[in-house]
Amino acid sequence: MKIAVLGASTTKFGELWDQSPRVLAKKAVFEAISKSGLGTRDIEAIFVGNMLSGILGGQENLGPLFADELGIFCPAFKIEGACASGGLAAHNAINSILGGQYKTVAVLGIEKMTDHKPEEVASGLMAAGADEEREAGATFVSLYALMARAHMEAYGTTEREMAAVSVKNHFHASLNERAQFNKLVSLEQVLSSPKIADPLKLMDCSPVSDGASAIVISHDRFTGKVIDPVWIVASSVATDTLALSQREDLTSLRAVRLAAENAYKAAGVSPSDVDVAEVHDCFSIAEIIACEDLGFFGRGKAAREIANGKTKLGKGRPVINPSGGLKACGHPVGATGVKQIVEIATQLRGEADERQVKKAKIGLTHNVGGSGAIAVIHILRS
Amino acid sequence: MKIAVLGASTTKFGELWDQSPRVLAKKAVFEAISKSGLGTRDIEAIFVGNMLSGILGGQENLGPLFADELGIFCPAFKIEGACASGGLAAHNAINSILGGQYKTVAVLGIEKMTDHKPEEVASGLMAAGADEEREAGATFVSLYALMARAHMEAYGTTEREMAAVSVKNHFHASLNERAQFNKLVSLEQVLSSPKIADPLKLMDCSPVSDGASAIVISHDRFTGKVIDPVWIVASSVATDTLALSQREDLTSLRAVRLAAENAYKAAGVSPSDVDVAEVHDCFSIAEIIACEDLGFFGRGKAAREIANGKTKLGKGRPVINPSGGLKACGHPVGATGVKQIVEIATQLRGEADERQVKKAKIGLTHNVGGSGAIAVIHILRS
Repeated sequence: MKIAVLGASTTKFGELWDQSPRVLAKKAVFEAISKSGLGTRDIEAIFVGNMLSGILGGQENLGPLFADELGIFCPAFKIEGACASGGLAAHNAINSILGGQYKTVAVLGIEKMTDHKPEEVASGLMAAGADEEREAGATFVSLYALMARAHMEAYGTTEREMAAVSVKNHFHASLNERAQFNKLVSLEQVLSSPKIADPLKLMDCSPVSDGASAIVISHDRFTGKVIDPVWIVASSVATDTLALSQREDLTSLRAVRLAAENAYKAAGVSPSDVDVAEVHDCFSIAEIIACEDLGFFGRGKAAREIANGKTKLGKGRPVINPSGGLKACGHPVGATGVKQIVEIATQLRGEADERQVKKAKIGLTHNVGGSGAIAVIHILRS
Repeated sequence: MKIAVLGASTTKFGELWDQSPRVLAKKAVFEAISKSGLGTRDIEAIFVGNMLSGILGGQENLGPLFADELGIFCPAFKIEGACASGGLAAHNAINSILGGQYKTVAVLGIEKMTDHKPEEVASGLMAAGADEEREAGATFVSLYALMARAHMEAYGTTEREMAAVSVKNHFHASLNERAQFNKLVSLEQVLSSPKIADPLKLMDCSPVSDGASAIVISHDRFTGKVIDPVWIVASSVATDTLALSQREDLTSLRAVRLAAENAYKAAGVSPSDVDVAEVHDCFSIAEIIACEDLGFFGRGKAAREIANGKTKLGKGRPVINPSGGLKACGHPVGATGVKQIVEIATQLRGEADERQVKKAKIGLTHNVGGSGAIAVIHILRS
């Protein structure tokens, strides 16, 4: 499998009250097309990753809507799988190219969340959850708090180590002008921030965000037009139960382990080959678990390694979340999985400026929906 | 392109107040798997076509939800494109098989609408519409009423001819025990039914429905297990503007013409080769326009031909909507595109009992989203 990323772009993430979804979509897609060296007429299909347009915006049929707005009248689809919608849109786009149905397509991840009341957003996000969890009044932070507690009990993981994830990701975001939070935070600031669901605090949590990200991918190099494409060499998806109560273990996500195993196999690489990864740190504990499920560190070892700087730009390998991750770059739900690919493609092209991971050759994206009901992994090579 | 339909099933459509979406999904998928001669472990991915689960049910992440409910923990996706969601789910499933990502997958189309207030359903459906149409207070029946008026003015199409579409489809549904309305209606009953959006009357309109449909498809014949697979030989999608006001012509849908042209080319057949078709008769005028856009009859000629019985079982060719169509079999939005494939596969296998189209060898499905913003065409062969 070899799919070329020809162009990649993301809007700034944040509270973008002055920009409509249509504006965000156009910015991301047209910049991605522009970078690809192709024209709009080369785009043969559009795959839109989005979760909340129906619930929050009363708008569905986003495929034709954005095709219309972009003036690109081609087949267009909305793919939804909660916070993994963006990665799943890329997965379906890749499969369609491999199937010979389309040659070159655009994948757009987009979400507009900050125009709505926080309680509407929190309730909307629980549309990805299990009935029993919703009936019990659970929110996603409370589900991840359960995982954090289990991880602390099993491996002695500390609140201080979790806080270190946020500190690192804010440092990375301080080098990324398109991140929602470009500022540094200290360990003490994270530890003293208000508790949301014990042991997770406000600064352990990714924010509510607006934003759009896009990639232009193709089944082959457009000779003479693109100097240096990046290749997607694996795209793998797996699922698990919706409800935490049905799982054997709360310290690990089976869907991630399965998808990662298949992705490494398809790409012919091992975790130690990965130079840079964007992982789904919806909460600080999620990044710790991800680093273990992806095989970057042994079970129960990731928290200490991260706290010791092993995943920080300029200090260790693999560098995790150079964009700032969901925590600091922001988490416009449907955009996240596509933004991860944008960041890795930018890194592998050596175009990440101040946050460039030196000699990055192999990168990985890890995008999760719900509390781990679905996961999608992409592996990219320069 | 050659994709085998190994199993196909639909629940009864109707007001199914005693059956949850989970129950409907299980019935449809397990019956389709059972008919395929395979087991649940052979299913490598699930593609769910659904439009309104978020807006009406506050539930998203339907891929993992139904994977969990079915006990089939494989990659799973929700594909949305308004009333074309089911057909688009099939399209993405087919492409993924052609791409070598999955060998055998299930496509589930599902919608639960009748548990909600009619005004909520009408408003939810407009989530597929253009802003200007919604702001003007338009509903889908009013948009199709504009098309009906334009067609009447351009070609002299009459209300009586439109009514004949409903009469024929109710006749077909009277032979289909899984249809929502198994009863005959007369021309006079249709013509005297209450006006909804002049010239369209209640009996020109498809109903609000619950239901689920499923197919099991594979890239190859499972030798020795399946006696008589049916083949999908074309799957084609096209889009148009969301808003009617942006189109050149209201008497024809460009997205349908484009998708059909590509589908006929891919399948190597012409409209006159089609023995049986399931078309998207959300309103009676839609079937008339479909028969023209699909090339079954010349421009402006379909209404008379249908009124003369040319598309009625046992009287003419191609037989249109032997299931009863959206009008009489019912229209659970996300299920419709999949149910159309179920019906055509059943016809081509010669298993349609009383409503069997004799010697049916080539069939077509025509599934439309919004007021023609997106269309998906499948062509099948025995």
